[in-house]
Amino acid sequence: MTSVVEPASRRAVVLISGGLDSTTVAYLARASGQEIFALSFDYGQRHHRELDAAATVARALQAAEHRVVRIDLAALGGSSLTGYGPIPTEPTTGGVPTTWVPARNLIFLAVASGYAEIVGAGAIYLGVSQVDYSGYPDCREEFVSAYQRAADLASKQFVETGRRIPVIAPLLHLPKAGIVRLGLALGIDYGLTWSCYQGGLSPCGVCDSCRLRAGAFAEVGVADPLLAR
Amino acid sequence: MTSVVEPASRRAVVLISGGLDSTTVAYLARASGQEIFALSFDYGQRHHRELDAAATVARALQAAEHRVVRIDLAALGGSSLTGYGPIPTEPTTGGVPTTWVPARNLIFLAVASGYAEIVGAGAIYLGVSQVDYSGYPDCREEFVSAYQRAADLASKQFVETGRRIPVIAPLLHLPKAGIVRLGLALGIDYGLTWSCYQGGLSPCGVCDSCRLRAGAFAEVGVADPLLAR
Repeated sequence: MTSVVEPASRRAVVLISGGLDSTTVAYLARASGQEIFALSFDYGQRHHRELDAAATVARALQAAEHRVVRIDLAALGGSSLTGYGPIPTEPTTGGVPTTWVPARNLIFLAVASGYAEIVGAGAIYLGVSQVDYSGYPDCREEFVSAYQRAADLASKQFVETGRRIPVIAPLLHLPKAGIVRLGLALGIDYGLTWSCYQGGLSPCGVCDSCRLRAGAFAEVGVADPLLAR
Repeated sequence: MTSVVEPASRRAVVLISGGLDSTTVAYLARASGQEIFALSFDYGQRHHRELDAAATVARALQAAEHRVVRIDLAALGGSSLTGYGPIPTEPTTGGVPTTWVPARNLIFLAVASGYAEIVGAGAIYLGVSQVDYSGYPDCREEFVSAYQRAADLASKQFVETGRRIPVIAPLLHLPKAGIVRLGLALGIDYGLTWSCYQGGLSPCGVCDSCRLRAGAFAEVGVADPLLAR
């Protein structure tokens, strides 16, 4: 069975949203010698600003491929991120916010598992953190562990050879400021990334995602290069 | 926590491919008093014959809704079902066949979980059988159980209320002939369904799926109404 330390393949599928966390994890995978197969989703989100950022990041880290899979989750309704109701401009104070897209990480990971099997990748990198997160249940370690088991049992490769494709989530226990520090040490230009739930020319500054990002840069004591542009 | 016997909601999401198994499970759900929210996928399969059958079946059982989610799995490559290489015309004799679409049931279930959460469904019905199946790993009970755990932990509803949305797979231990017997007892017109991997006017008769279907009708001793048309 493949261990996390020595994957059978140097290929890694990385879920890249164009945001701060997934960009950091992609650079971390590259720094550990992985060949990057970037995967993004056009899922009916309100704007394409984050997909543009994902493409820019994939180019910047010289990904071997960048696939954008279209899946029409907006047809299912239910989230302010896909056009159902406004994006909240006040901080979320408890519970799961309206920006929650039901089962989004489950869906994205499932496609990543299929893609990884097709390109013969040895790992899937996922940039979730359960420390400074937006209250989404599928950003927690116990979800990632349970997903791993389901993906193993759905995998032709695992059933035939016993080799799993591990889901690696190296940011799980890092607070947002720790992620920014790690990324700056890796030489990431965070000016290439996009975190805001809105798709304006500049970040709105008031959505949950903007607030988390601003707090992290303030804690690190560095100006966010995206705001300096 | 919701039990399988008394769901909190009479709404059920049913994954309908237009084939024999998923049609049987949909009628079984309706016969047990569920209001059907049918879900199908336009995933880049070779032909739309099965999606037409899914729509016909959804109408015939008076589903409350029938959503067809587009997801471009063909962009990932890898399966003869989405255009990579020919459909085999000889029986598969061992291992996972080339018609395998990596992680397909995992992806479909993940979207079903999101849809179920959005419409407030109390269950998801899945028409897989691990008896007479095509060698796909994600048709087995241990996969369904592992998926349930992952879906629970990805669910806003489960995290907030402890109520899971159970995945019900009532055909898991039924051979294909048993499924046909059950469906005939439920009054299903199997002439509405489509099983063939090819998209011709008539079933090819030689793909794995046609062979399994023909064997089941022969064992039951009933003519397949699809072939009589």
